[in-house]
Amino acid sequence: MKVLIIGAGAVGSFYGSLLAKQGAEVSLLARSDYLYVKEHGIEIEGKQGVQHFQPAQVVNSAAAMTEKPDYVLLCTKVVEGADRVGLLKDAVGPNTAIVLVSNGIDIEAEIARAFPGHELISGLAFICVTRTAPGKILHQAYGRLVLGNYPRGISEKTQALCSAYQQAGIHCEANENITAARWQKCVWNAAFNPLSVLSGGLATADILGTQESFVRAIMEEIIAIAKAAGYPLPDDTVELNISHTRKMPPYKTSMLVDYEAERPMEIEAILGNAVRYGQRLKVSIPHLESVYALMKMRELQLAKVTV
Amino acid sequence: MKVLIIGAGAVGSFYGSLLAKQGAEVSLLARSDYLYVKEHGIEIEGKQGVQHFQPAQVVNSAAAMTEKPDYVLLCTKVVEGADRVGLLKDAVGPNTAIVLVSNGIDIEAEIARAFPGHELISGLAFICVTRTAPGKILHQAYGRLVLGNYPRGISEKTQALCSAYQQAGIHCEANENITAARWQKCVWNAAFNPLSVLSGGLATADILGTQESFVRAIMEEIIAIAKAAGYPLPDDTVELNISHTRKMPPYKTSMLVDYEAERPMEIEAILGNAVRYGQRLKVSIPHLESVYALMKMRELQLAKVTV
Repeated sequence: MKVLIIGAGAVGSFYGSLLAKQGAEVSLLARSDYLYVKEHGIEIEGKQGVQHFQPAQVVNSAAAMTEKPDYVLLCTKVVEGADRVGLLKDAVGPNTAIVLVSNGIDIEAEIARAFPGHELISGLAFICVTRTAPGKILHQAYGRLVLGNYPRGISEKTQALCSAYQQAGIHCEANENITAARWQKCVWNAAFNPLSVLSGGLATADILGTQESFVRAIMEEIIAIAKAAGYPLPDDTVELNISHTRKMPPYKTSMLVDYEAERPMEIEAILGNAVRYGQRLKVSIPHLESVYALMKMRELQLAKVTV
Repeated sequence: MKVLIIGAGAVGSFYGSLLAKQGAEVSLLARSDYLYVKEHGIEIEGKQGVQHFQPAQVVNSAAAMTEKPDYVLLCTKVVEGADRVGLLKDAVGPNTAIVLVSNGIDIEAEIARAFPGHELISGLAFICVTRTAPGKILHQAYGRLVLGNYPRGISEKTQALCSAYQQAGIHCEANENITAARWQKCVWNAAFNPLSVLSGGLATADILGTQESFVRAIMEEIIAIAKAAGYPLPDDTVELNISHTRKMPPYKTSMLVDYEAERPMEIEAILGNAVRYGQRLKVSIPHLESVYALMKMRELQLAKVTV
C-alpha cells in the first residue's frame, strides 16, 4: 500500500505513522516543516513513550513524488486560502483514492467537483493530538477514525484502509453514511469550538459548567439542520454529547488552539457551511447565526490586529 | 441648589460641573481619585478648551458632608459589587431627591426599595466622555440628558434640575415616561456594547459594516421585550438607530472601554436585566440570550485571568 500524506501537522503525522507501522510505504508532503522533517522525520510522543516515524519520502510538492500513491490523505485544515485542490493536483494518479481527514460540513463537494474520476473517501478523526514543534507531535488521547465514501457507501479501498488502521490498533469504523457522521460530529464542534474562542479561552468544562443551556440550544439547532437535510440523528445525541464532555478533562478546542496561535480558524467548515445549509432549508437557527456572526467579527478584528 | 455628585468619573464630573457653572453648590464624592481631586479639582477638556471645576467640597464618604443636599446624583456604573445603596445611605437627608444617571434596564427598583420615602429621578446621559486620568475628563461629543421620575411622571424637582441643565447650555429633556426611554436607549446599547467586546474590539462602524442583520436582530428583540412590558417603541426605532450609528465616527463603546481596562462591565444592567425581563414575559429572544451567555463566559474568563 503506497500512501501520501499531505500535511505534516498533528493529524497527518499521527495517522501516517500508523500506516507506516503496518508496513505501508508512507510518504509525507510537508510545507512549513519540510526541511526539519526531511532531516529528522517525526517524533510522536504518546502514553507508550516516544515513537519515531520516518516517511519513505519527504517532499514539499507532490510533483517531486516518484510514483503516484494508492491513497492520498489530505490532512490540512479547511480554512480560507488553503488551496486543497492545488495541493492534490499533482498528487493523484489514475488509481489514487483521495481521503479527506478533516472537520466540517460539506467539505467534500469542492474536491468531488475538481476530481470527478477519483474515488473520494471522507474521514473524521476523533483525537486529541497537537504539533508542539516542527516534527514533534504530542498524542494526548483518543484516536478513533471514521471513514466512508462520499457521498455514501463503503468501497473496497475504504474497507482496506480501515483494516490497516484496525491492525495498527486504533478503532477505525467504515461508515455507510459519512455525511450523517459529519453532522453528528458537528453537534459537538459547532458548540464548543466557537464558544471556547468567543469566551476568550474557556476550556470545555467551564463552558458547560456555566452555560449548559446555551450549549444545548446550539446542539439542537445543528440536529434540526441535519434532520431537515435528511440525516436525522438519534434522540439522545445532545445528552450523550453533554455527558461525554462532562467526563472529559477540561479541553482546549482546536479552534481555540488555532486562535491563540493566530492561525486561521475553521469557521466556515464547522460553522458557516452549517449555517448556510440551515438557511437554505429554512431551519430556525438563531443561536448558531449569533455565534457565526460573532466569529466572523472576531476574525475581522484578528485580521486588523495582525496586519 | 445644593448638589452632591457621587462618582468622580467622566459622567459625574461632567454633569456636576455644568450645575456648578449655573451657580449651584456642587460637592463631589470621589473614591479612587479622592486625594488628587481634593487638591486639584477637575479639568474638563472639550471643544471649547479646558474648563476647571472646583467642587464646593470633595469628600470620600457622604458622612463627611456638612449639609444634606437637595439632589444627590449617583453617577457610578451599575456593576456587580457596586454598593449603590451603601453609597447613598449617608448622602440623603429627608428632602434629598435621588438622581440615578446610568445605563440599563430596571436599575431603579433596588434604590426605590431602599429609600421608599425619597423622590427618585431616573436619568439617561447621551454623551461621549472619558476619564483619561484622575481629575482629567475628555468630553468628546454630545451631552443630552433625559430625566424623569421613577416609575413615571415629572416632579417639580425634576423640572427644576432640567431647567438648570438647559441654562447650562445642554439639551435636557424632562420625560414623562423614563422607563420607555430606558428601553429606547437599550436598543442601541444591547447590540453594540456586547458585540464590541465579543468581537475582540471592533468599533461600531465595523460591526455594522459586516454584521448589520445580526445587529438588527438584537435590536428587534429588545423592542419586542419593551412592547411586551408595556412600552411599545416607534416603528422606525431600528432604522433610526442604524442610520444614526452609520453617521457616527467609528466609536468604541463604554463596555469595550471597561473591558480593555479590565474594569467590571455593565453586563447585568444592560443585558442581563433585559434578558430576564424577556424570559419572564415569554418573549422569544435567542440572539440576546446568545450574546448574554457569551458575555457571562467572557466575564468568567476575565476573572480567571486577572485573579
